[in-house]
Amino acid sequence: MSLISLKTSKNSHRFLNDANPVCVRNPHLDALKDDVLYHFGLGTGTHNLPAMFGDVKFVCVGGSPQRMKSFIEYIAAELKMEDPTSEYPNICEGTDRYDMYKVGPVLSVSHGMGVPSIAIMLHELIKLLHYARCTDVTIIRIGTSGGIGLEPGTVVVTKQAMDATFKPKFEQVILGKTVVRNTDLDQSLAEELLHCSKELKQFDTVIGNTMCTMDFYEGQARLDGAFCFYNEKDKQDYLRKVSEAGICNIEMEASVFAAMCKLSAAVVCVTLLDRLKGDQLSSSHDVLHSYQQRPQMLVSCYIKKRLSEARLTSV
Amino acid sequence: MSLISLKTSKNSHRFLNDANPVCVRNPHLDALKDDVLYHFGLGTGTHNLPAMFGDVKFVCVGGSPQRMKSFIEYIAAELKMEDPTSEYPNICEGTDRYDMYKVGPVLSVSHGMGVPSIAIMLHELIKLLHYARCTDVTIIRIGTSGGIGLEPGTVVVTKQAMDATFKPKFEQVILGKTVVRNTDLDQSLAEELLHCSKELKQFDTVIGNTMCTMDFYEGQARLDGAFCFYNEKDKQDYLRKVSEAGICNIEMEASVFAAMCKLSAAVVCVTLLDRLKGDQLSSSHDVLHSYQQRPQMLVSCYIKKRLSEARLTSV
Repeated sequence: MSLISLKTSKNSHRFLNDANPVCVRNPHLDALKDDVLYHFGLGTGTHNLPAMFGDVKFVCVGGSPQRMKSFIEYIAAELKMEDPTSEYPNICEGTDRYDMYKVGPVLSVSHGMGVPSIAIMLHELIKLLHYARCTDVTIIRIGTSGGIGLEPGTVVVTKQAMDATFKPKFEQVILGKTVVRNTDLDQSLAEELLHCSKELKQFDTVIGNTMCTMDFYEGQARLDGAFCFYNEKDKQDYLRKVSEAGICNIEMEASVFAAMCKLSAAVVCVTLLDRLKGDQLSSSHDVLHSYQQRPQMLVSCYIKKRLSEARLTSV
Repeated sequence: MSLISLKTSKNSHRFLNDANPVCVRNPHLDALKDDVLYHFGLGTGTHNLPAMFGDVKFVCVGGSPQRMKSFIEYIAAELKMEDPTSEYPNICEGTDRYDMYKVGPVLSVSHGMGVPSIAIMLHELIKLLHYARCTDVTIIRIGTSGGIGLEPGTVVVTKQAMDATFKPKFEQVILGKTVVRNTDLDQSLAEELLHCSKELKQFDTVIGNTMCTMDFYEGQARLDGAFCFYNEKDKQDYLRKVSEAGICNIEMEASVFAAMCKLSAAVVCVTLLDRLKGDQLSSSHDVLHSYQQRPQMLVSCYIKKRLSEARLTSV
């Protein structure tokens, strides 16, 4: 089953030359008088969503609320759209489930940790963009991950999201039955992001497969959880197979992100450590913080380029 | 496989008459020089965990950070342990992944939404309680849920946590293989909590099975997600089967909570709506807020009773 939610052309000037709406695939929504986007604290009956969000072209999502606030401050400065008071209010202030910030055409939303948490956010985000009548939206997850045989700090743009058995699929139980969805991402967008990294020349970026797990400790073969019933050799054997499957990094959201956000979507995660060498995130706060800025820099470069192309085209 | 992490006797005076430690089950931890509890921003090398947490006897966990802060303020007042300045600092202030508050023997921790998010928190919490040399700890999740045929506002104490196919088990992929764990909870603790509700006489409480799903929309047969490929009849057929399986409510964390926190652990969730009657959480903010206080009231009553028994026994 294919969920084509964010349908855009492959044209890099896509949001000028055509106008592909963000599509929901749910006939029941038409029958709702109002739709309460509960976990955002927003709704069609209480908020003018087209006025608030109609101009959104880029949605960046990440686990940490603080990181997504930093990102909106960073991209505002990069786009020369700073608020002179430097105040970026949290649009979801009525709830503490997710944070949401906006500057110009860029929306920044936190999603918490793990597949269920990001899935709730994406359902409500896709409905929000649909109700706001947004067109030609690109959505990019900027996150952190454990690397496989990569120098810590390397950025990985996901080619395909894989599950913990190295299959490029996302399984979900619906009405008691297992439904399997594909986890393809937009390859041309991935290439564009890689190209931005080559221009930036500030850190290494690779395109590779990303394994998405449902747990951080046992689910990622760590030896440092509260429970562990395997040994160092079992762990290394598994991580060797992970590497042989072309997997460059491990995180916890890519599969459902890829399954829900079709076509113009990318996952860009920095690696905080090399899992072939250890489990603990024991680098200094400053080092980890500087690593986490790399996906933001990459995506900022991409957004600036797209906006600049759009301006050239519109002259 | 059974994970006996929080091992206590069934004696209601359990933390005076004996001293059962919080056990990790991971021989590799002994080899760690320091253990960084990354998602708490705490560690054995940077914090004196026994001094900070050694007296903890009750851990209450819930999804929302704000709710867990409200709970610590509420329980502080109930235990007459208020901070005169009413300041309850977030112990995890170095990170924005989870919030943690403490007053006397009570620790209050947020866990975000969904199985992966609470699992990360529980791994680090169990290690924290172990390093702090805590004994005789009771852990209770206080949450929200969708009810099945119950008046909204009814509190459900979980008998058994079930998956979306109504099986009392939790499945997890470890080293690429599926591992199945049981989801039993402490029945005597559940009965004690039910008894507290009868004394309080302020709202209805039932003991019943709780279904834990990996998604809020399609995974709970809602018709109001961004995607929906089934109809009202399919939904009602599924929810009827849910009801026939003895399931009283649906939430997103109970199964891994039950699998990881053995013996002295309970799940206490209020129902915010009756899913047999609808999908949307459209009650007023005030009504939903008052419902969310009910599990807190119940657990507060239980903690006060336990502490009072302990004082009587120690005279």
